[in-house]
Amino acid sequence: MIKKDIAEWFKNLQDSICGSLEILDGKAIFHEDKWKREKGGGGRSRTIKEGDLIEKGGVNFSDVSGSTPKKILQALSLPQADFFATGVSIVLHPENPWVPIIHMNIRYFEMSNGVWWFGGGIDLTPHFVCPRKAKKFHACLKASCDKHSETFYPKFKQWADDYFYIKHRGETRGVGGLFFDKLDDSKGRSKTQQWRFVQDIGETFILAYKEAVEGLREKPWTDSDKIWQKIRRGRYVEFNLIYDKGTKFGLDTDGRTESILMSLPPEAHWVYDRKPETKRQKETQEYLKKGIDWVNL
Amino acid sequence: MIKKDIAEWFKNLQDSICGSLEILDGKAIFHEDKWKREKGGGGRSRTIKEGDLIEKGGVNFSDVSGSTPKKILQALSLPQADFFATGVSIVLHPENPWVPIIHMNIRYFEMSNGVWWFGGGIDLTPHFVCPRKAKKFHACLKASCDKHSETFYPKFKQWADDYFYIKHRGETRGVGGLFFDKLDDSKGRSKTQQWRFVQDIGETFILAYKEAVEGLREKPWTDSDKIWQKIRRGRYVEFNLIYDKGTKFGLDTDGRTESILMSLPPEAHWVYDRKPETKRQKETQEYLKKGIDWVNL
Repeated sequence: MIKKDIAEWFKNLQDSICGSLEILDGKAIFHEDKWKREKGGGGRSRTIKEGDLIEKGGVNFSDVSGSTPKKILQALSLPQADFFATGVSIVLHPENPWVPIIHMNIRYFEMSNGVWWFGGGIDLTPHFVCPRKAKKFHACLKASCDKHSETFYPKFKQWADDYFYIKHRGETRGVGGLFFDKLDDSKGRSKTQQWRFVQDIGETFILAYKEAVEGLREKPWTDSDKIWQKIRRGRYVEFNLIYDKGTKFGLDTDGRTESILMSLPPEAHWVYDRKPETKRQKETQEYLKKGIDWVNL
Repeated sequence: MIKKDIAEWFKNLQDSICGSLEILDGKAIFHEDKWKREKGGGGRSRTIKEGDLIEKGGVNFSDVSGSTPKKILQALSLPQADFFATGVSIVLHPENPWVPIIHMNIRYFEMSNGVWWFGGGIDLTPHFVCPRKAKKFHACLKASCDKHSETFYPKFKQWADDYFYIKHRGETRGVGGLFFDKLDDSKGRSKTQQWRFVQDIGETFILAYKEAVEGLREKPWTDSDKIWQKIRRGRYVEFNLIYDKGTKFGLDTDGRTESILMSLPPEAHWVYDRKPETKRQKETQEYLKKGIDWVNL
C-alpha cells in the first residue's frame, strides 16, 4: 500500500462518484478546477449547482505534501517531518427540503518519519428527520463496518455523535453516521485491512445516498419548508465554520479557500430566537440529539 | 468610576440608541428579551426585524460576573479571580444593499484582583463601497478620538484594519473603523479619561450611522444587487464565526447563544468561486484592503 496507489484510488473514486451523481441528478454536471498548492501537491475540485436534485455541492480530491504543520507535530510531540495527505471530500445540498444534506470525507495521512493513519467520516443532515430513512442509512453504514470488525459501527457511530455536535445549540448536526481517525496498525489490524475498510466506506457512499434520497426528491414542498431548510442550513454553516476540524485545518494551513468552503450551502437564513413551528419541525428538533440507536429504532 | 455606574451608563446608551434607531427606521420596533446567566448576571437583548431600513439587527446590553474563564487567566498568567464584564453590542443589517452593515461594541472588564480595562470597536461594512461615505465615517470617528488623544485614531484605525480582516479571503470585512482593547491606566491616562473616551465612541454611534445611511436608503436596487448583498453577508458570517473574538469568547463561556449570534445576517448566499461581476462590485472588492487612508482620500 504505497501513498501513490492510495491517491490514485481516491481519484478514481471521485470519478466514479461524480459520474453516478450526474446520472442521479439528471440535469446538472460537475465543473472541474484543477489547482496546485504552492508548498506542494494540489487537487481537483468538482462542483455542481442548480441541478434537479442538487442545488449546490462538491466532490473534491486533493493530494498535498510539504512540511508538517506545527500544530500536528506539537500534538504528537514529534520533531520536524514532511507530510503527505490525500483524500476525497463531499458535501451535497439538495434543492428539495425533504432531501437530506450528505457529507463524506475519507483521507490518508503519512509523515516522512513513518507515522501514518487513515481517517474519515460520513453523516446525514436531514432538514426534516425521517426516522425510517435514518435507520436505513445507519443500517447501510453498519453493514459496511461489520464486514471488517463488529466493534467498528458502535465505536464510530458514537464518535460521529460526539463530533457532529453543535455545542452552542445543544443539538447534533443531523442524524449522524460514522467518524473515525488515526486508524493505524497499532491495534492488531494491518495497513491493508484498514485501507480495505476505508475503501468500503467510500464505495458505500453512492448506495447510502441513493437510498437517503429515494422517494423524497419528488415530495412537494412549500415556501415554509424552504425557509426551514435555510434555517437548518444556517446551523450547518455554524458547525462547519466553528467546529469542523477539516475546515479549520484547511484554512490554517492556507489551503484553497474555495475548495474548503464548497461545504457551505447556497442560501442560509438566520432568524432571532426561531423555534420550530410545525409538527414536523418540532419532531426534527427532538431527533437532533446524541445516542439515538437508529439501527434498532 | 465604579462598575455599577458603568453598567448603568451602558444601559442608558442602549435605551437611547434603540430609541433613535426606531425613529430612523420609522417602521419596526425593538423586541426585548431579558435573560439571566446561571453563573451570574444577565442582560437585555433587543432585536429588530423587517423594518423600513433595518432588515435584521440587535442592540444588546449585558452585565455578567462569575469566575474568570481559564483562558483569560492563562493569557494573563494570573491565579483564580472573579470577573465582572459589561457592555453594549450592536449589529445592523439593512434591507437595502446600498446601505452598509454597521457594528459597534464597547465594554468594560474588571477582576477581583484589581485588574480592569475598557475595550471596543466600531466598523462599517458596505456591500458596495462608497469612498465618500467611508471618508465621512472615518472623519467622524477621528473627531471623537482627537478630543482625547491624537494618537488614538491612527492607532485604533490600524488595529481595526488588522482585526476586521478575513484572512482566508485576503480581504478586509469592510472599510474598517476603530478597534481598541485593554485600555487601562498604565500609560499615564486615568480611568476617568479612558471612560470618557469610551463614552464618546458610544455617543458617536448614532451620528456615524445616520451619516452612513443618508442618501443611500432611498436608492433603488435590483435583484442582482440583492444577490451581491447576500454574498457579502456570507463573508460577514465567515468573519463572525471564524475570527470574531467576542463570538468565540461568548460561545466558549456558555453565553446566551441567541444574543451572541444576533450578529448573523437574515440571509446569506454562497456561490462557488463567485467573482465580482459589475463595475461597482469590482470597485468594492478593490477597496477591501488594509491601510487605506480614508480620511485623506
